[in-house]
Amino acid sequence: MLTENQLDRVVVVLVRARNPNNIGAVARAMYDFGFRHLRLVNAYPVSLSEARSAVDAVEVLVGAQEFTSMAEALEDCGLVVGTTAGGKRVQEHSLYPVAEGSALVRDHLAATGAATGPPGRVALLFGSEKTGLSREELSHCHWTLTVPMQEQNVMRHPSMNLGQAAAVCLYELAQKTALPASLVPREEDAPANASGSASAADAERLTQLLIEMLDACGYRQRHPANSDDEHLRRLVRRMRLNATDAEVWMGMLRLMLRSVRR
Amino acid sequence: MLTENQLDRVVVVLVRARNPNNIGAVARAMYDFGFRHLRLVNAYPVSLSEARSAVDAVEVLVGAQEFTSMAEALEDCGLVVGTTAGGKRVQEHSLYPVAEGSALVRDHLAATGAATGPPGRVALLFGSEKTGLSREELSHCHWTLTVPMQEQNVMRHPSMNLGQAAAVCLYELAQKTALPASLVPREEDAPANASGSASAADAERLTQLLIEMLDACGYRQRHPANSDDEHLRRLVRRMRLNATDAEVWMGMLRLMLRSVRR
Repeated sequence: MLTENQLDRVVVVLVRARNPNNIGAVARAMYDFGFRHLRLVNAYPVSLSEARSAVDAVEVLVGAQEFTSMAEALEDCGLVVGTTAGGKRVQEHSLYPVAEGSALVRDHLAATGAATGPPGRVALLFGSEKTGLSREELSHCHWTLTVPMQEQNVMRHPSMNLGQAAAVCLYELAQKTALPASLVPREEDAPANASGSASAADAERLTQLLIEMLDACGYRQRHPANSDDEHLRRLVRRMRLNATDAEVWMGMLRLMLRSVRR
Repeated sequence: MLTENQLDRVVVVLVRARNPNNIGAVARAMYDFGFRHLRLVNAYPVSLSEARSAVDAVEVLVGAQEFTSMAEALEDCGLVVGTTAGGKRVQEHSLYPVAEGSALVRDHLAATGAATGPPGRVALLFGSEKTGLSREELSHCHWTLTVPMQEQNVMRHPSMNLGQAAAVCLYELAQKTALPASLVPREEDAPANASGSASAADAERLTQLLIEMLDACGYRQRHPANSDDEHLRRLVRRMRLNATDAEVWMGMLRLMLRSVRR
């Protein structure tokens, strides 16, 4: 079971949610399993207000926050986990079944237990009902998880109902206590230096500095194929920086940028 | 993972379901995880037809069967498992968290694997959205399972949304492969003689014979407190009879009944 502090450090983020019923269902599942923080990024207009006016709306909805950019919504999160339908493997990310992915999240929460500050926050992202998370949205994630479904169904019905997918993910996250013995987590996803890991805000600032820098020095014009925003964002995320190193990198980039522009 | 044959031997039974959206959501979760057989007992009029006309209705709904009695809906099932909200412990039944309960169901399916006949079928019951399963309905069950929720929430929001509860239960049932090492199942719930276990139809026939017999001999008039239908039904279920023994018991009861009436 997660502690109160750990439950408090999990943020559920709905990206481009359209259906008020689904938003309400996600909030209800959060409430059922003890999670409190719901954020919406670019929700379809009026979706949240409609969900809030539903008869059985839970208080999670009252406190839900709205954002217009991924970066803002994630800026205090040290680990960002995307959810995808089983069929949609994204080459650049590790993809875990929800049971294993939940164990990694719990490990992160445990490893950052002393810190109540931003780096210890974990964001769990769900994409729009129609399309899931876009490649751009996934580029903000450290890794992804999926609810395994029947193979033959994946192609025809590519995703679960949003409220049901959230219920299964939050159930897994809330219930279990230990990493399954069968799982050997990938080196790069394990929370080795999680306690001091850079926040998503730092990673994004660093990414933006890098982009500016690469623009300024003409790199992106010369190598457009592997230097769009998504590529660079993933590049930075894969560094799995600790907070101190992120500062150092940003300091270096700022100076480089100034030099180039001078 | 469950085999095709095992998936085919699980029956999801919705009792007094009211909301077409919930029926649709349960069908969708069944489809996602590979289950096929949906039965409705005393569904609110038009619920099923409305659910069937939904745009994203899955084929599970097309094949759904309707019943007007629990006994009929369950007659080919050898194991009947009820679901309850966490707060509602029913003294007479074992109550398992869904992870452990699912492991027991899988064990039953594995133990009855050779038989394709009725005793190998497992029914998973969900009650109405408002009230859950009644005591009378629960008396048809061998044991119950629940999705553990946050303690403080149980009293105020006594149950999960039906579609979400079904998604979590079917996810657990479909995904896992082995009994958690931590679990020592209660002796009486383990599928020791499951391969030859009596069908629910046999258990119910035996119960009815017993009731007739107790009526005929005046027992129930004298001991009304512990001989109503529910008590007797549970009494018979706790016998965990195999098919042969059930026949023997029924033969004995029929003869006793004839003697008393003569």
